[in-house]
This record gives sequence, C-alpha cells and structure tokens, in this order.
Amino acid sequence: MKRTTEKNLMVFSGRAHPALAAEVADLLGTDLVPQAAYEFANSEIYVRFEESVRGCDAFVIQSHTAPINEWIMEHLIMVDALKRASAKRITVVMPFYGYGRQDKKHRGREPISARLMADLFKTAGADRLITVDLHADQIQGFFDGPVDHLMALPILADHVKAKYGDQQLAVVSPDAGRIKVAERWSARLGGVPLAFIHKTRNIDRPNETVANRVVGDVKGRLCVLVDDMIDTAGTITKAADALLADGASGVVIAATHAILSDPAVDRLKNCQVDEVVVTNTLPLTPEQQFDKLTQLSIAPLVGRAIREVFEDGSVTSMFDGHA
Amino acid sequence: MKRTTEKNLMVFSGRAHPALAAEVADLLGTDLVPQAAYEFANSEIYVRFEESVRGCDAFVIQSHTAPINEWIMEHLIMVDALKRASAKRITVVMPFYGYGRQDKKHRGREPISARLMADLFKTAGADRLITVDLHADQIQGFFDGPVDHLMALPILADHVKAKYGDQQLAVVSPDAGRIKVAERWSARLGGVPLAFIHKTRNIDRPNETVANRVVGDVKGRLCVLVDDMIDTAGTITKAADALLADGASGVVIAATHAILSDPAVDRLKNCQVDEVVVTNTLPLTPEQQFDKLTQLSIAPLVGRAIREVFEDGSVTSMFDGHA
Amino acid sequence: MKRTTEKNLMVFSGRAHPALAAEVADLLGTDLVPQAAYEFANSEIYVRFEESVRGCDAFVIQSHTAPINEWIMEHLIMVDALKRASAKRITVVMPFYGYGRQDKKHRGREPISARLMADLFKTAGADRLITVDLHADQIQGFFDGPVDHLMALPILADHVKAKYGDQQLAVVSPDAGRIKVAERWSARLGGVPLAFIHKTRNIDRPNETVANRVVGDVKGRLCVLVDDMIDTAGTITKAADALLADGASGVVIAATHAILSDPAVDRLKNCQVDEVVVTNTLPLTPEQQFDKLTQLSIAPLVGRAIREVFEDGSVTSMFDGHA
Amino acid sequence: MKRTTEKNLMVFSGRAHPALAAEVADLLGTDLVPQAAYEFANSEIYVRFEESVRGCDAFVIQSHTAPINEWIMEHLIMVDALKRASAKRITVVMPFYGYGRQDKKHRGREPISARLMADLFKTAGADRLITVDLHADQIQGFFDGPVDHLMALPILADHVKAKYGDQQLAVVSPDAGRIKVAERWSARLGGVPLAFIHKTRNIDRPNETVANRVVGDVKGRLCVLVDDMIDTAGTITKAADALLADGASGVVIAATHAILSDPAVDRLKNCQVDEVVVTNTLPLTPEQQFDKLTQLSIAPLVGRAIREVFEDGSVTSMFDGHA
Amino acid sequence: MKRTTEKNLMVFSGRAHPALAAEVADLLGTDLVPQAAYEFANSEIYVRFEESVRGCDAFVIQSHTAPINEWIMEHLIMVDALKRASAKRITVVMPFYGYGRQDKKHRGREPISARLMADLFKTAGADRLITVDLHADQIQGFFDGPVDHLMALPILADHVKAKYGDQQLAVVSPDAGRIKVAERWSARLGGVPLAFIHKTRNIDRPNETVANRVVGDVKGRLCVLVDDMIDTAGTITKAADALLADGASGVVIAATHAILSDPAVDRLKNCQVDEVVVTNTLPLTPEQQFDKLTQLSIAPLVGRAIREVFEDGSVTSMFDGHA
Amino acid sequence: MKRTTEKNLMVFSGRAHPALAAEVADLLGTDLVPQAAYEFANSEIYVRFEESVRGCDAFVIQSHTAPINEWIMEHLIMVDALKRASAKRITVVMPFYGYGRQDKKHRGREPISARLMADLFKTAGADRLITVDLHADQIQGFFDGPVDHLMALPILADHVKAKYGDQQLAVVSPDAGRIKVAERWSARLGGVPLAFIHKTRNIDRPNETVANRVVGDVKGRLCVLVDDMIDTAGTITKAADALLADGASGVVIAATHAILSDPAVDRLKNCQVDEVVVTNTLPLTPEQQFDKLTQLSIAPLVGRAIREVFEDGSVTSMFDGHA
Repeated sequence: MKRTTEKNLMVFSGRAHPALAAEVADLLGTDLVPQAAYEFANSEIYVRFEESVRGCDAFVIQSHTAPINEWIMEHLIMVDALKRASAKRITVVMPFYGYGRQDKKHRGREPISARLMADLFKTAGADRLITVDLHADQIQGFFDGPVDHLMALPILADHVKAKYGDQQLAVVSPDAGRIKVAERWSARLGGVPLAFIHKTRNIDRPNETVANRVVGDVKGRLCVLVDDMIDTAGTITKAADALLADGASGVVIAATHAILSDPAVDRLKNCQVDEVVVTNTLPLTPEQQFDKLTQLSIAPLVGRAIREVFEDGSVTSMFDGHA
Repeated sequence: MKRTTEKNLMVFSGRAHPALAAEVADLLGTDLVPQAAYEFANSEIYVRFEESVRGCDAFVIQSHTAPINEWIMEHLIMVDALKRASAKRITVVMPFYGYGRQDKKHRGREPISARLMADLFKTAGADRLITVDLHADQIQGFFDGPVDHLMALPILADHVKAKYGDQQLAVVSPDAGRIKVAERWSARLGGVPLAFIHKTRNIDRPNETVANRVVGDVKGRLCVLVDDMIDTAGTITKAADALLADGASGVVIAATHAILSDPAVDRLKNCQVDEVVVTNTLPLTPEQQFDKLTQLSIAPLVGRAIREVFEDGSVTSMFDGHA
Repeated sequence: MKRTTEKNLMVFSGRAHPALAAEVADLLGTDLVPQAAYEFANSEIYVRFEESVRGCDAFVIQSHTAPINEWIMEHLIMVDALKRASAKRITVVMPFYGYGRQDKKHRGREPISARLMADLFKTAGADRLITVDLHADQIQGFFDGPVDHLMALPILADHVKAKYGDQQLAVVSPDAGRIKVAERWSARLGGVPLAFIHKTRNIDRPNETVANRVVGDVKGRLCVLVDDMIDTAGTITKAADALLADGASGVVIAATHAILSDPAVDRLKNCQVDEVVVTNTLPLTPEQQFDKLTQLSIAPLVGRAIREVFEDGSVTSMFDGHA
Repeated sequence: MKRTTEKNLMVFSGRAHPALAAEVADLLGTDLVPQAAYEFANSEIYVRFEESVRGCDAFVIQSHTAPINEWIMEHLIMVDALKRASAKRITVVMPFYGYGRQDKKHRGREPISARLMADLFKTAGADRLITVDLHADQIQGFFDGPVDHLMALPILADHVKAKYGDQQLAVVSPDAGRIKVAERWSARLGGVPLAFIHKTRNIDRPNETVANRVVGDVKGRLCVLVDDMIDTAGTITKAADALLADGASGVVIAATHAILSDPAVDRLKNCQVDEVVVTNTLPLTPEQQFDKLTQLSIAPLVGRAIREVFEDGSVTSMFDGHA
Repeated sequence: MKRTTEKNLMVFSGRAHPALAAEVADLLGTDLVPQAAYEFANSEIYVRFEESVRGCDAFVIQSHTAPINEWIMEHLIMVDALKRASAKRITVVMPFYGYGRQDKKHRGREPISARLMADLFKTAGADRLITVDLHADQIQGFFDGPVDHLMALPILADHVKAKYGDQQLAVVSPDAGRIKVAERWSARLGGVPLAFIHKTRNIDRPNETVANRVVGDVKGRLCVLVDDMIDTAGTITKAADALLADGASGVVIAATHAILSDPAVDRLKNCQVDEVVVTNTLPLTPEQQFDKLTQLSIAPLVGRAIREVFEDGSVTSMFDGHA
Repeated sequence: MKRTTEKNLMVFSGRAHPALAAEVADLLGTDLVPQAAYEFANSEIYVRFEESVRGCDAFVIQSHTAPINEWIMEHLIMVDALKRASAKRITVVMPFYGYGRQDKKHRGREPISARLMADLFKTAGADRLITVDLHADQIQGFFDGPVDHLMALPILADHVKAKYGDQQLAVVSPDAGRIKVAERWSARLGGVPLAFIHKTRNIDRPNETVANRVVGDVKGRLCVLVDDMIDTAGTITKAADALLADGASGVVIAATHAILSDPAVDRLKNCQVDEVVVTNTLPLTPEQQFDKLTQLSIAPLVGRAIREVFEDGSVTSMFDGHA
C-alpha cells in the first residue's frame, strides 16, 4: 500500500499577538488554524485545535510579550498538543525570544533562563525555531536543533536610509556591549562613522553611573542610535541626551523589539529624538503608540522564512550580502 | 585527599506562598535560603540565591496558585539556577500540582499538560518531586523519577472525626469520577456509608445537566462531601443542595486544595453547609476567608516528608494503615 | 538527484494473536509481512523479517495476552529490528496495553509498570502507539509521543442497543472507581439510569469484603454491567449476583478486553447473566469460549485507525459525538 | 542542617535463582531484602519491597534462565520500583546476561537484542551492571555506564588444574569463533597446546555440516574443551566425539554458564567425556544434574565484586595477572 | 498549502580522502557539495557548505585515516553544521570506522572508544551509519540507530578467485581471534581448507611470543592470508613467513583496510608474498604504493549502498548468499 | 551493611600541558594519577589509568592547544574511561575552551562548534566543567550542567597595577565586540578611561580594512590593550600601532590565553609594546618565549576552584567584588 507523500503547511497562533500571526498567514495565502484557547478560573491555560493537524508541517507563532510567562506557557502547551496530535514537524516561531537577556550568569547562582527556554521548547516537542534578532547570537547554540535567525536590520535600515540618507549620519551604540550591532548598521548604511556611549562611574560611589560619555565623534551628525530592543528606554534616552549635548544634529532611535515597558513611552515622548523606528515583533497597545513612533511590519520577513523552510529553500539567501 | 561526605539540607521558597514555606522551614529547624526574586519591567522573572548552595540537598517549595504560569515559571527558573550552582540533589516540592486536571486528552488535539509539567521540571533539573493529593494518582507516573505523594486525608479526616464523630455520617462524592477518594474516607471514618451525586441529562438537551441525583442513602445523616480541590465550587455546592434536599441532616465539605476562584467564596457562603474544611497547600487572601472555613496546616506533613527524604527514612511509613 | 517521496504501509504481527492481525491486514487490503519468529532452546526469542522494510511506515501489532512477558518482549524485539532495518516510522499497536492496571503506586515501593512499558517501547524505537480502552486514560500521558486511543464503546453499545434497546435498561459499574465509564455508556444508550456496586466491610474484619451493596435503583431493569476488562471475573460475577438479588430483571456484561483467566469461564458460566459481550482485542482459546459469550471484532476499528494514521486523516473524527 | 552521609548496602533477588542470591548475601553478611513477588492471573508480574529502600546502594540479582522473558521483565520491574522508591544507586547483577548471543546482526533485518537489553535496563533505572563471562566482550560497550565484567576462568581452571594438572593437556575450542577464550585457558594452564574444531561442509550440500575436523594436535592428550556456555550441547558433544576419534586420551568440558536446554543432559550423559565442569550462574533442576557434572559456586566471585563496588575498591585487581 | 514531498540526495566529503568521495559521487551521477574547510592558526577546524542543504538527504563521507582525530573531528563538525542547517536526514559514511579496535575493555580502566565514537556521532546529529568491514560485528550495536554494514569480501574474493582459482588454496587467519572471517572466505572460495596461526609463548618469558605455530595443514597450498586491516603488518608478515616455512606454495594477503602505518610497507616489500590485495577505504600516499600491492575500489559498493538507502531499496540484498 | 561515605579527590592530566596539571596537583597536595597514554601507529589514542578510580571525585585537566583535535579527543577518551571505571563525579577542567570562537553561526550553514564541544563532553560522561575566561560568557549556557567560569582578570590586572599603577592609564579594546571585557578592566583598575579600535572600511573595497581608528582619548596615556586570547596577534599588534600613532605613551598587552600561533611571536617582538602579559592556560614552547613576554600562573586559581568544588565551598566568593 503506497502513497505519494504530501506535506501540508499549517500556521498556529497563540493569543499574545494575533494581528502579527494573521498578517503572516495572510501573506502565505492561508488561514490560522482555528483553536479554542482560554484560562480556567485558577489561570491554568487550555488549548485545543479545532481541525485535524495529523501529519502537518506546523508553524506556531507566539510573541513573548507581557505577561510573558503566561504566553510562553501557552506556547509550550500548544507545542505539546501538536506533538500528541501527530504533527509531523513543529517549528516554534518566536519573533521575540523571551528571557533572551538572561543568556549567561552575570553573577554566581543565577539561572541561564535563555538556555532553559530552549530546553523547555525542545522538551515540549519543538523540532526547530525561527526567531528575530536575538539579544546575543550565541543563543542560537542554546537550542539543540536548527534555528533560523532572522534580521530586521534590512527593514529598519532601509527605512532610515530612505528618510535620512541625504544627511551626515553616525551610528551610535547605547552601550559598550552592543557595538557589534552598530558595526553592521554602519556597513549597511555605507560605512558611516561609529560611536558608543561609555558609562563612567565615580570612584567613591561605584554603584552610581555619574556620566554618559560619548566615545567617538558625533558633532553635527544625525545619530542613528541602534539597539536590539527598547524596554524601559532609560539607557537609550540618556544616550540620546548625551548625543545631543555633544552636538549631534539630531537623533533617530532604531530597534527591532519594542517592549516599551513603563515608563518607556513617557521617556521617549519627552526626549528630543526625531523618530523612534521599531518593528511589530511585539504588540503595542494604543497607549504605547505616540507620534514619533514608526512601526514597520516584520510579517513579510517571517512569512518568507516560513515559506523557505516549508519548501526547503534557503533562509540564508534572504540575507545575502548583509550578515 | 579524602573527606567524609556531609549532606546539607537547604530549603528554598518561591514567592507564591511564603508563609507555608516559612512554616515548613521552621518545623525543620532551619531558615529559608535568602534570595533575590523579582520581575523585570517586561515581566520576566529574575532569581538569585544569596548564599552558596554548592553540594546541598535542595528542597524548593512553590505553591502553584494564580497567576499559576508565573509561579510555575519561577519554580522552573529556581531549579535551573540550583542545577547550575551545583546543588547535589534537587527536590521540587509542589503542595498543589499545577495543571493536574489536564492529566489526559479528554478530546483529540488537546495537550496533556500535567505530563508536560513533569517533563519541564525534569528538564530544568529536578531529581525528585514531593506533592500532596494529586488529582489522579497516575500523575506520579508522569515524572521520570521518585515522587513522594503525600495524603492530607489523615489531617482532614481526624478533624472531621473529632468534631462530628458522634453523629450518623455518610461520605459523599460530588461526582461519579471521584468515588475512590470517598471510599478511602469511608474506611478512615470507620466504614460509614457511601453515596455519590449523579448528574443526569435531558435526552432532548444533552449538553445541559438537568438534575443532580443522589445515588445512595443519605437521609438523616451528616454528609461529608469530599473532593481533592475546590475551584469555583459550582459542583460541590450543587451537590450540597441536592444532599440537603434529599434529607441529609447537614453537610460538611472537606477538600485538600482550596483554590477558591471566583465565585467560590460567594457560593460557599450562600450554601447551607455547616463547615468547609481545607488545608493551606494554597495561599488564601483575606477576601477568601469566611466564617465557615477551617484551614488546617499541611506544613507538618510536608516538613516530616522532607526530613524523611533527607535522612533516608521512610515516607511510606507516614501513612501506614491508611493508603 | 531528486525523487518524489513515497510512503509505504507495512503491517507486522507478533505471534500472540495472529488472527486479529491478519483480519486487520485484510481490511487494509494488504498482507502481513512474512517473518521468522521462534524461541531458542533457552526461551530467548528470535525475530527476522523476510522482506526489506527500509523506509516503510510500520504498524506492529501484538496483543499482550498470557504469557504476557513473552509477548511484550517479542513486541520490543520486533521494534528494535525495525529500527535497525531503517523503518521510517514505527507505530506500536497494542489492542490490549499490558500492565495497564499497574498505573500508579497503590502503596509505597511498588513499580509503575504501565509507565515502564511506555518507556521500554520508546527506548526500543516506537514513534507512536495505537491502543484500545486503556485501564486509565492517564496512561496516554505515560508515552512521550502521540497515542491514538481507540474506544470499543460504540461497537459494544450498538450491539447491546440493537438487542436489548426495547427493555428498561440501567448501566452499572462493578466498583466505585469505574463509574466514569458507566457514565459514557449511559450517555451512549440515551441517558439510562446509573448504579454502582459498593463493597462494604465489617469493621471488626476490615480485610474482608462482607457485602456488595448496590448503590442506585435497578429494580425491574435489565442491567448492563460494564468494565474495561474481565480477568478472573470474580468482582463482576459477584456484582451480577447482587444486581439480581436486588431485583434486576436481567444482567448483560459488556467489556472490551476478555482476559478470562482461570476461573473466569466457570464463574461466568455459573452466573445468571444473559450475555457476556466482549471484543477480540485478546485471543480466546476454544476452552475460553462458551454459549453466552459474544465476541465482536475490533479489527475494523484498528484497521480504520491505521488507515487514518497512514493517510494523515483524523482518528478523533472516528469518535465524534462519543468521547 | 548537616549530616554525615552514610551508605547502606542492600541486596535484592528476583525469583529466578534465589539460592545463588542467598549465598551471595550470606557471604556479604547481610540478608536479602524481603519482597512480595508473584504473577497476577493474566501472568503480569507484581513486585513490592517490604522494607524502606530510600537512599540505599542497591544490588539486584537475577539469573536470566528460562522462562527468560519472564525473569528479565521481573528484573526490569524491580529496577523501576527501586528507582521510584528513591534507591540512591542501582546495580543490576546478571550472572548470565540474557540474549547475549544476539550481539550483532548475523543477517539483515535482525534485532541486536543484547543491545536492546542494555538499553531496557538503562531506561528502567540501572546505573551500572555486574555480569559474568559475556558471550562477547564487546557487550560491555552496549551499556551506557560502568560494567564490571567478571571472569569465571580462575575458578574453573583452578579446578581443572588441581584435578588433571599432572596429565598431558590440550585446550580446545569447539568452534572457530571462540579460540580467543581457549587462548586465555591455555595461558592460565601454563601454556598448553591449543586446537579447535573446524566444521567442514560438502560443496554439493552447503547447508549441512558433514564433518568436524580437529585443527591442531590432540593425540594422547586430555582435552579441555572450553566454551562460555552449554545450551543444547550439540556442538560441544560432537566436538568431544571428534577429539576422541582423533586420539585424545580423554575430554573434560568446562563452561561458565550451564543452560542445559533439552536435550543437553542426554547428550552429555551419552558422550564419552570424563567430566563437565560448570558454575551456578544459572540454576539447575534436579533433572539437570548428572554424575559427571561438577557445579562450582560463582557466589564468592559475585559477592567479592559487590563488596569492592560498595566500598569503592577495585574489581580489576580481582583478576590481576589473568586477563 | 500542500506540496508533494521531494527528497534530494546530497553527498558531502571531508578532506581525508576526497578521491574516494568523488568516485562515489560520480557513480551516483552527482557532484560533491562544494564547501569551505580549513584549519585556523591554532588548528581548530572550520567548515561551511556553499549551497543550501535544507531538507536534503545528506551522506557525509570521511575516511578515518591519520591524523585520525583531526578527520573524526571534521566529520563531527560537518554533521553539526548539517543538523543546524536543516538537513532532513544525515547518514555518516565511514568506509573505515576509527577506533574500531578499542571495542571492549581489554583491561580495567580502559575506555571503549569504539562506543564513544558511535555516541559522539549520534550527539552531533547522525541519524544512521554506513561502514565497511567493522573490526567486530558487535560495533553495529554501539550505534543507537540503523547501521548498514557493507562487506568487501565479494570484491576481494572475486579478485583472488579469478587470479588463483586454479591452484590448491587454503584460507589462513593470522591469529586465533579472526578465524570467523576466514570461515567466510573459505565458504566464498568454495569450501577450501582453513588454518590459523597460533602464537605460543615461553613459560619462562610470558611476555614474549616465541613462535608462530601454524594450526592446520597448508603444505603445497597457496595460502590466502585474510584480515580486516593491515596496520603495521607485523603480525601478518610473520604469519606469511610461518606459512612458507611450513611448506605453503605461496601466500596472498587480502585485507579490506590498508592502514599501512610505518613500517608496514617495508615489511610487506621484504616478505615473500605473491600479492597484497586491499581496497581503497583508506587513502594511500605514493610512498605507500608498491609493486605487489593491488588496490581495488570500494566506491561501487558504497555508491550502491547509498543509492539503496536513498531509494528505500535493500542493502541486505546486495550480499544475498554471502553473509 | 552501612558505611560512612567518603569522597576522594583525584586529579588527572592529558598530555597537552602536563606542567600546569602538575602545578595544580602540587598546590592541592596530591599527585597526578599515573596513566598510560600514547598513540597507536595509525594515530588512534590509547589511555589507561594505572590506579583504581572507583568512586573518586575526578578532575580531568587538559589544555586545548594545537594539535587541538588530538587533545580534545584524548580528553574525551579519558572521560569515557573514567565513566566506565566508575568514577563518582567527573569534572572536566579546560583552562582554555577549544573552539570557543565558533560560538554562533556567523553565516548560514556553519557549525556551532562550541556547543558541539559541550555536548561531546556531556556525552562522554562529564558532569561539570571548570574553565577560564570563555570567549563569550554565553558558552556557559552551552553545557547542560554546572560550569565554574573562572576569571584571570584579578591575576593579570594586579600585575599591571603593581607595575604601572603610578602612570596615567587607559584601557583599550582591540575591537568593538570586546569592550565589555575592557569595562571590567577599567573598573578593576579604579575607573580609568576606556577606548576601542574601530576598523573602518573603504566603501569601494568593502572586504579590506583600510584603517584602525582609535575611538576614545589615549593621548599621553599608557594603554592596557586587553583581550581574552592572542592567536596570530595581527589585530592586537595593529591596535598597538594605532594607539602609539595616536599619541599613547606606551602599550601593555594583557590576555588570558596565549595561543601564539605563527606569526604571533614575530609580530609581538616587532611591535613597540612595553610588555605582553599572559597566563599559562596554554603551554608555550621555548620558541614562543620572548623578552617582553610575562607568563603568570593560572594554577593557584584552578587549584583553589577544584578545592572549593571538592569541599562544597563557593567558587563565586573567589571573585566577590570583581564580576
């Protein structure tokens, strides 16, 4: 009894950011698989798929936004349900990788939660991961299996180039640890100068940052202040202030992940930046929107990656010439 | 270079129910290990132990109460941190086992979240589990390692016996699936009669329960209505009503786990029961307290089990003659 | 060098119950894969397949009947041979899941053999399981992978309905722990009343059951006494006696798995039941056959499940409206 | 709360060969741990330990004799029960390693059952193995953990030397594949000559062995015919006949494992050998005893190995100068 | 979104023996996948594939020749890269299995490196192995997955038969442990007589081999001296000398793996053998070539096996009638 | 049979850097365990321990220096031998973690060899790791178990402080990606200024670095140029040149790992640096020594860490106030 084998793409979405998942499904020409998902009275999550998923090539999208443990657990439970319902292959799509910042022990007796997350998804049944702009590239190595690591840089940088390309630019890293990202931006923008902010400390009060010193020359330049994420926006708005104090002609902030926890929105509104450019890897509430904020869609990138994975194409080729 | 090997008991507590953990530690004559534990702005949890835990025999207590995913994730992260900090053995103590009710696929394409939880803790680094009154005994088999399954029955039943032992009693199960528990109560109370509530359905409207029929004879008896947990208290208060309607002389509700999700407290207050007896496996807010509620401490049971485990004693012997 | 992928269904049978496997294969329009299988002089089992199995979608059927350890080991060895011979996917089909009753620790220092079985098959190389009417639904969660759990209830209940549907029926559980199954029967038969047998004990002689008390009203009704399996038939025949003593108009016993260990046949013959309805998940010797026994074939159910699994159809849909 | 760590040796025995286990325990100055072990009516095995085993260093002895699948399964179930009851370390003692002869694929589509056994015990919870005279030394590598591989050669050879050391000896291997063992015997006996039996085939009838040709010179010598096991004794008795036909002055058969399946006893009785020397790694029924059979006890060897393992001594040193 | 599944064969080669891999690819009608592979200054190996490998059926060929650790590590790194780049299935092709001789503990406190290698490849991501003439057949059981074990015997023996089939032949094993191989040769050559070399030792100087005694009759016969590998050629050339001293009419050496470590070439040149027949499972430098050496290609065998594996054919059938 | 448990520290060394291991053992007041370790003719490595290691707490030291694959394989084989010889706990001590730079996929279809190494050691049997100054802190998360990550910074910085503390210092990172390390140095040296070297590229020739621009102010300062390792010394000597060209008063290079591959020594000799300070995590040949090179011993750090691990002390406390 022989059959030709078929493969069948199915896209699933948790409840954290349905708009993004719907946009991705739409770009793929398919619908999200209908499901029941809700909390019981004691906050336990229940999930059930309303169509057969047997033998499918499943892509399960969830953005790890607050309440983040809730959404990660829902993500894990969806994977468990897919595994037990005989999905053929399960790709976990996490546009923002939760706990990515706890990627090492900063001090003794800390967890390495980013590795823990990789292991939890593996245990639940994930065969592979798709994610965007990890906090550290090494997190790819935390998962025991293929990880397709997408970069929002082309999307963000093309926007900046189109809008500000005629000005004198500088690319600035808000702290010493992320200059590598700034270097990629510099290359993408055609080799513009680089700077970073060095936090200095008063010897007598070692726990307080007393000054943000700009290392590099930014005078008269429009500074593109780049980071992977904006959480409370403390560091980045202080960096913007320092740049302007140092004679920058303006500041544009660009980051992939717009967490925008309190009081990020206030800080960004009050800061003299020209624009804040982010993507929609994370959902924004209406309260998190403001005039200077530009949100670019990550859906075309994620959608294309899913298509390449499904059709055994190449994800690497999507970034040729950039990495 | 030789040394005599020593073992060192250390007790850790998550933030869900510190009062219980403190009581357990106190009974063991030790203190909870001090730790930093808090959420970052985007709700990611951070944990760090403030003492060396190298080589210790760690017992990590967390009650899986709402917001349950938050506390389970904290529990997992604590285990990860202990593993990476070289704890010698890690025993996860979950007085209430979260997601225990999703212990099977009730329908196709559901998860088996109770198994998933067991695997997540194993992956994080748990060597063994201690838990109280699982929703189904089979959950012991979900964990790949030793599980010490404690029973609150002696604590609850002794209270009932002391207070109501001079009356004509009946033990009642609120639904057909939990009669086995009622049988253990019946034996413990000296062989009193058994009954259960059968939910009947109207043939024309199969999805609605039309009546709660009492199967067994309860007339003139004080009914001890027993269950493993009280969540929204819908089933159990309807059962109490049915018993009283059938001529029961009174109703005492006894359950190990007092989840008491909305509107449980209102329902229980409004119901004509004499007393609601529970343990403190889960924390209760002041709003969840009410006159008829008696909360017995589970700490002596958990503390003794930890001591037996640490000293290679016998947990089984704690329940000799009951199980 | 590209090829279109084909999949190839192959059905294998151990020696425990070849008639059932042959019937399944026949319904699938295929033949059992020929194999050599025998014991060496010291009772070690040898198995070898006589056709190439490379790349096949293998379904390996074995009924776990006595001598059960023999047949389970043969089952495991077949799976090992398939794994090493490059079968693409291995589905273990166990119409009766051996050791299902040891699904928890009833007392301390017992094994959980049902979990052990799940792990042994996983280790040998099983990717998935198909089984019928587990002793406890939770056993699904013992296996780390997809389990298709089939229900014989429609087959058994349709037979009962066709033959006795015009009488006043009651559904009876032979003990307190299995009322859930009786509830499903009740629903399937259109909402007939429910009862169960409560074993009472004499306080002075706690280890002896002194009476089987019927809880619920059975007077004048034809009682359908339901269980998942009949082993020595002690409990169920005593239950039948109690029902008749309580005024039942007759008793029909229905169970999925006919183990019928000694002295089950004598007991059932001597008991005043109208009919004993079972399936052929387990083989019966001529000595185990008797007049009142009706054996319905499970092969169409198993065959259809295999087809759905092979063709990425839906097993859940086979039971829509019942579970 | 600190304690000095103690370790506690406990010896367990399955039901296959209790006499050997009792002898081992006795030599260690301890008793076998009391346990309940029996079959249910459908032949499922039940095991429970009657003392607390928490924290113990467990040694679980079972001889894999016929019915071998029964005893292997009991062995696995005992290990599972020990794991779940919190034994600290579990050493599986198998004086005869079941399925050792299926240590490779002799032909395509065969299992490698000896590897499967190693994996099954690992899965059940075995930390380490102790075994005697594996059919192939490579089987040590099948288990993922420490294997203490004991040799009966000193016991057997010392007996032969004491009794026949004054005669002209030759050591003979009954087939070409086991000459390595014969070489060790030759060395142990002080360098006596070596021979082996070559089975020749008639070219026209390739599936029949037509002759057992002795390769090497045995004329006038007392031949010590050595093997790891005697199963049906066909090969070895034909070898003895060939040796005598070639002028050997006598034949002594020596083997570690006395399986003695039918018709081994008849063949050995009818063969003109002087003595058959074996150990008690496997139990013998009274029917399997006969005049020429000498059974030497393996218990001192196993007991000493257990003591070395428990006390972190050296098992290697037990065989210094022999291996 | 459905697609017919295609599979795509891709052949990869490490740098140890590119000529063999190229020959295999050529026979399969494909090219080796282009890759970058080199050492960094500190001798760490770097590998990158220059084409997308997503979804491919990968066959990764590397001969484990000296410097063997270098090439094994490159092999492992290639597998890791394939796994992370989403190859669908990874078959490790090792024409010579490195560390095969350390297949057991010859003495206490030794590694079992052959098992370690199997585990390392599994960990890196190997799904299956193809290898030729393992040092011990049991090594198949070291890998947890399918192993296709190819035999060079037909290739070598057909060459010997064609060239020397008209002479009186004998098959000789150079030591007692490898007579099984000689038996297969004997069968393949039509049942010719068998002999082996027995190394005897002087009792007073047990660590020195004093003589190589020929066991079996070789007078006047052309001896085919067979082994799985020739490393330093000490044993085999002494064996050849002993055969000639015993009256053999000539000696032909046949072995699958030509390691030819120093001083193998000198020894073989200086020895009175007629021909040394080997395959190209391992590469030979020009210095390792000499007049009497005949190197037959293993590529057709490996190529055909890869084709059978890719097309779900039968590897067993390639050797029907030989094994 | 009870015993007080003892633990026994044993230190093992591979052949890569015996001087360091001997110094560590000496500081611990013990000797290295004697072992046989050599290559066979075909370059396979053989290892055997000459003392019983049963039950020991093993620390296995190997520096991953060139030929690095050789030494890593030896390290793995030692771990396998320890596991199979019943060591109780195996701590792998790698003063330099081989393949640490391949800690992520820089481009598609690359391996993540640093993760692979962690998995290989885990598979071989490593329970824990001790290492010094990982190339990226995230590598801690690659190993599934405890990692004690030691820092040479205090040793190196104290040397610099003692010798140059009276001068005006600046700390300089040789490239943008390693400024975090420079920040730690800056803090340790009391808050001295920070700078880094930015490699700029010519837009027309993007693959060539055209200039090393100093970002930050170094004029008149003695620059401490810091990195984790010096391999070929190209980057760091160019950085030194750039600093001097920018007006630095002098340059001291400090790095933990002195790989010093060709032509590092020539470059460093020819460069106008005042001193090159390194540790002995890696061995140096006499040819790799030169006048300006100062090699500080890492042995006291490693020795103390081993002692803390053995005695269940605290490794974290060794770095209090620094990390």
